[in-house]
Amino acid sequence: MGRWEPNARGRLEQAALELYSEHGFEQTTVAEIAKRAGLTERTFFRHFADKREVLFAGGSRLRELLTTALAGAPGSATPFEAVAAALAAVSAPLRERRDQARRRQHVILANAELRERELIKLATLSAALTDGLRARGVGEPAASLAAETGIAVFKVAFERWLEGPDDGDLAEYVRGSLEQLRSLAAGI
Amino acid sequence: MGRWEPNARGRLEQAALELYSEHGFEQTTVAEIAKRAGLTERTFFRHFADKREVLFAGGSRLRELLTTALAGAPGSATPFEAVAAALAAVSAPLRERRDQARRRQHVILANAELRERELIKLATLSAALTDGLRARGVGEPAASLAAETGIAVFKVAFERWLEGPDDGDLAEYVRGSLEQLRSLAAGI
Repeated sequence: MGRWEPNARGRLEQAALELYSEHGFEQTTVAEIAKRAGLTERTFFRHFADKREVLFAGGSRLRELLTTALAGAPGSATPFEAVAAALAAVSAPLRERRDQARRRQHVILANAELRERELIKLATLSAALTDGLRARGVGEPAASLAAETGIAVFKVAFERWLEGPDDGDLAEYVRGSLEQLRSLAAGI
Repeated sequence: MGRWEPNARGRLEQAALELYSEHGFEQTTVAEIAKRAGLTERTFFRHFADKREVLFAGGSRLRELLTTALAGAPGSATPFEAVAAALAAVSAPLRERRDQARRRQHVILANAELRERELIKLATLSAALTDGLRARGVGEPAASLAAETGIAVFKVAFERWLEGPDDGDLAEYVRGSLEQLRSLAAGI
């Protein structure tokens, strides 16, 4: 292992997002990312498997936050209340990372392969939520329905948060979207 | 153009699904599909761009059915009622194709690339529903929420229909899942 670099991971992430935005994801090389971060390629590969992973490494952390919050919701919580608690737990740490999330979103929307990867990430979160709800004793199809629609709500809320005013709070967007789903669903 | 072959497309589809199930999607060649269908490779390529398209050609027909039914829903319909009408329109023609749909699902679940393609297909249907709801005058985020959660409900209902008894009716699974979403969402 090389010498310790303070916040190497964060610097690489920042440099990568800048370069992907400036020149496009495909045109950017790992060498350029390392250079912009003032680090070596070797250090890059100590933190990320490839340049795509810079954009998706957060996914496993999100899944962990989701499943932990889901398991920690009170036993009396309804399936949707438990899902709401899980989505709130995911929203909190994203609060401070809005500019980064917005830049990431632009990079992803500009590239078909990255859009596919993002869909897979969401499907993975949805599967984790379903498993977590089953572990709470929720039967089928309630577990799948609450999980799939919960992630659908999160996707819409997340996109609106990114497009909205700079001081927006993702957790509020999620709460508002869940409320709106309730009134929409009441009008079947 | 070669001579006209009666129901060439259906025969090719049937042959492809059989071979994908028996030997796996990757291991099957277009030559084998054509041979099993008693047709030529040339005829195959007159109907499908490649062997993957056999599995996904139905997607554009689904999208057409969805958007036509959505546009045709009464003006007084709520967003979710309009979505329910669109999903019912998509369910009807699938009724007679359950064995085929089940075989197709097994092929897709066994292959990561095909699973991704299926997620993209669902995302495309969701985007078409969102556009159709906006065209009906539904604002945001209601249009996106109703569309994304509508497709999520359809996905769950579709999977349960495939796993359920042979005489199951997809349209009933969809209706039941929408009802269940309503009661789940009421418990936020």
